[in-house]
Amino acid sequence: MASSAASGEEPAPLLPALLLFRRLDADFAAALRQRFRVLDFFASGEPLPAFLAGAAALPDPPRAAVVMGGGAVRVDAALLDAVPSLGFVFSTGAGVDHIDLCECARRSVAVANSGTVYSADVADHAVGMLIDVLRRVSAAERFVRSGLWPAQGDFPLGTKLGGKRVGIIGLGNIGSLIAKRLEAFGCIIHYNSRRSRDSVPYKYFFNVHDLASESDVLVVACALNKDTRHIVNKDVLEALGKDGIIINIGRGANIDEAELVRALKEGRIAGAGLDVFENEPKVPAELFSMDNVVMTSHVAVFTSESRSDLCDTTIGNLEAFFSGKPLLTQVLPW
Amino acid sequence: MASSAASGEEPAPLLPALLLFRRLDADFAAALRQRFRVLDFFASGEPLPAFLAGAAALPDPPRAAVVMGGGAVRVDAALLDAVPSLGFVFSTGAGVDHIDLCECARRSVAVANSGTVYSADVADHAVGMLIDVLRRVSAAERFVRSGLWPAQGDFPLGTKLGGKRVGIIGLGNIGSLIAKRLEAFGCIIHYNSRRSRDSVPYKYFFNVHDLASESDVLVVACALNKDTRHIVNKDVLEALGKDGIIINIGRGANIDEAELVRALKEGRIAGAGLDVFENEPKVPAELFSMDNVVMTSHVAVFTSESRSDLCDTTIGNLEAFFSGKPLLTQVLPW
Repeated sequence: MASSAASGEEPAPLLPALLLFRRLDADFAAALRQRFRVLDFFASGEPLPAFLAGAAALPDPPRAAVVMGGGAVRVDAALLDAVPSLGFVFSTGAGVDHIDLCECARRSVAVANSGTVYSADVADHAVGMLIDVLRRVSAAERFVRSGLWPAQGDFPLGTKLGGKRVGIIGLGNIGSLIAKRLEAFGCIIHYNSRRSRDSVPYKYFFNVHDLASESDVLVVACALNKDTRHIVNKDVLEALGKDGIIINIGRGANIDEAELVRALKEGRIAGAGLDVFENEPKVPAELFSMDNVVMTSHVAVFTSESRSDLCDTTIGNLEAFFSGKPLLTQVLPW
Repeated sequence: MASSAASGEEPAPLLPALLLFRRLDADFAAALRQRFRVLDFFASGEPLPAFLAGAAALPDPPRAAVVMGGGAVRVDAALLDAVPSLGFVFSTGAGVDHIDLCECARRSVAVANSGTVYSADVADHAVGMLIDVLRRVSAAERFVRSGLWPAQGDFPLGTKLGGKRVGIIGLGNIGSLIAKRLEAFGCIIHYNSRRSRDSVPYKYFFNVHDLASESDVLVVACALNKDTRHIVNKDVLEALGKDGIIINIGRGANIDEAELVRALKEGRIAGAGLDVFENEPKVPAELFSMDNVVMTSHVAVFTSESRSDLCDTTIGNLEAFFSGKPLLTQVLPW
């Protein structure tokens, strides 16, 4: 078949180039390729510097990049230097701790994230893990699957969810949805956040230590940044106390993981539900033998429904950027 | 030390005799023994007929019995014949399918149960199992604990809870609390019950088959009786369909278990969360290898808080019976 040029038609306009730094399922990848010329880092097999240099040297170098929260590639000064054509970075997660926002702001690189696409799923997962830890669901599951029920009979008692004081660290989209769900179970909600909110009936704590000492359960639902790294440290765990439960659906580094493992080993807190870890996919091996810990593999956002919503949000933001319209879920400019 | 008679005091009044047909923890047992002369079947080591004959032959034979839902001893005509002094049976569960209510009514034997002591805990457990099945929590737990995360990477996507149509079979105390919780997650509640309720905004279905065909999730929360045995049968599973999830916190025999196992094996339904089974503690071995099934060992009522509430409710009902006052949580007389 003749090329469009040979057939006398105008050549098809070149699709805008896009740097891609995450693996995508087939539908999502196809939707992007239909609209953009995707320069796929993982598919390239190249080392990062060579890949970036190649992209920057193209006649129409990429103006946008799609990156992944918790992924291997950080958007930092080095990356922005390597591809100076970049004007927009889209993070497929809610967290932007893998993006140096100051460097982006300095260079007028716009940033958007996944917005609230994942919020309900993450809140659901947090509540599921809390019920699991209190009511020993996964532990009872192991008990049944290993055939121990007929031999050993009754399983140890769990703990009631109703009436528990739940301290939420970070009352953003996700934290608010967790609060709403737990209210329906009869929990008493406390929270810590950068500032107190007039619009909610929950008790505000200015610092996490005080929040922990007046809570039975601590839920980490904040973004990771320099202020929230290890926001749950040895002192906070001590304040939570030996009957306290901790749930983390934020980022692994929000908790001092070594201290958490020590507190669990020594019975200084009662249990934990962890979807995130400091050095994913590495999980401290000491946790594997603990029946009072529930661990999942950073899957709180993993539903087919949110994946489909993410695809729409990604394309919507990229199309807005390339057509000079307002971003849908803008993080930068502030 | 001298006996009270020898010391000239009146002999202490004999505590009322009580038949006990369940194992109790130490605090609960002590609370009963303080108030009643407990004739403990399991501690006696006797066969049931000999134990009952011995109790009936006492100078002050027992007028009350404490029995356990799902326990080994049924309160039927034979038991009531053997101990004709019985005037009250207390079931430590909400279900009374182990008590022949018609025989009790015929002999004017009063019956009380645990009332709403367990309702919130059972509702919490049902929601926990539903999140677990949809979001693969226990399956992800096995994945992490077996060290597969670093080797295999991403875990399969789960399914969002919000927007799901949840059909509840039995909108009593427990069913209503499940509905209230799931509304907070954005679920759409449908129900089937003996009769439609004007006080709830949920859509009523006269039969379970129609409920299943308009639901994504079916939750069994009804009592077990002759009308509800195998209320979830092959046809209902067929109506629920291949994307459907079933949760059972009622009684194992509410579901035709053999048909459920077959439907799961053949992919004709998507998953199940089961706290109860037809032949507990026996669980069909085919389920042990299924990642889309969450199984717990009839622990939906197992919290230390509800255990303590049960102790209060048991003693309150027994003291009411022995002092001729109204029972607290009466089942019979109707």
